[in-house]
Amino acid sequence: MNFPNNKKTFLAKSDKSKKGSIDEKVVSLLETINNLPDYYSTSSCSGRVYLWKGTGKKSETQWLKVSHDLIGNDFFDSDEKNAVVWLRLEGMIMHIACKDLGAANALLEKARKFYKKSCILTASSKIIVEIRGSEFMEMPLYKEGKLLFSGDLLWLKEVINQKLEKMWKDAEKFRKSI
Amino acid sequence: MNFPNNKKTFLAKSDKSKKGSIDEKVVSLLETINNLPDYYSTSSCSGRVYLWKGTGKKSETQWLKVSHDLIGNDFFDSDEKNAVVWLRLEGMIMHIACKDLGAANALLEKARKFYKKSCILTASSKIIVEIRGSEFMEMPLYKEGKLLFSGDLLWLKEVINQKLEKMWKDAEKFRKSI
Repeated sequence: MNFPNNKKTFLAKSDKSKKGSIDEKVVSLLETINNLPDYYSTSSCSGRVYLWKGTGKKSETQWLKVSHDLIGNDFFDSDEKNAVVWLRLEGMIMHIACKDLGAANALLEKARKFYKKSCILTASSKIIVEIRGSEFMEMPLYKEGKLLFSGDLLWLKEVINQKLEKMWKDAEKFRKSI
Repeated sequence: MNFPNNKKTFLAKSDKSKKGSIDEKVVSLLETINNLPDYYSTSSCSGRVYLWKGTGKKSETQWLKVSHDLIGNDFFDSDEKNAVVWLRLEGMIMHIACKDLGAANALLEKARKFYKKSCILTASSKIIVEIRGSEFMEMPLYKEGKLLFSGDLLWLKEVINQKLEKMWKDAEKFRKSI
């Protein structure tokens, strides 16, 4: 097993994500995990909310705006006139390479207290645990320029911001548990 | 290893799901899987759409109505006047016990062509693969009796029914691939 070498090599590489940097909200959690000898993080997102259009397939989907922070009153604005615009909120997601299956199971057991949907993504040459928050929203927000939500947008903003804040609190609780 | 015995015992037990019976749409897929010596299904749902209220925690959540079939025009009706009513759509989900890690990896490889979010749920005394569809919706539909969707409800019904039909087609494609 060359787990320590793989870990060193991987963590020395630059960030390849769409965002291009590590989300602040999970930096402490990632540091805590990467300080444990049997684990290292390979990718992460602290949670995000975005507007998108397209078919939903990766190559046929366009993100119109995205926030990894609390959203403001103008987040729901859109100039898109010719498509269905969807609002999506995704919970925290984190991929952790583990030294062996025992290390993966131990991490899973701790993670499930906060992240019930966590699982083992790969258990062949590499062992990767996925830690996944359960928070999710997916709703059509505009159709050909017409707003489809008739409630109070400030209330919708609050609902989303409360979910985001809960994610960050859970990440901190999880960090303290490991 | 007593995998064949565990399989026989498990499959002889009665259905303990909330629905109380196996979804028709996945019966052929389950039969195909259970006919393979290295696998047996422990639970499944072919996909569903429901209205719910509460906090989202299992013990504090009440389902107001649920459909495992295409929905009709009256599905969005609700008499609830004092809470936020959410509309949720969930994709197919299936838990498959596997003889060993090799069998789990082989199943995962085939499943990921149709179900990217599939993973290994447990890899300790039992090895369970979760096959999980990516379709999902979660949107607030009523707040204190007021409808929050201002678009055409027939269009929303069609969006949901198309997602349900896609799930059942994918289940049949997956069945043919194994």
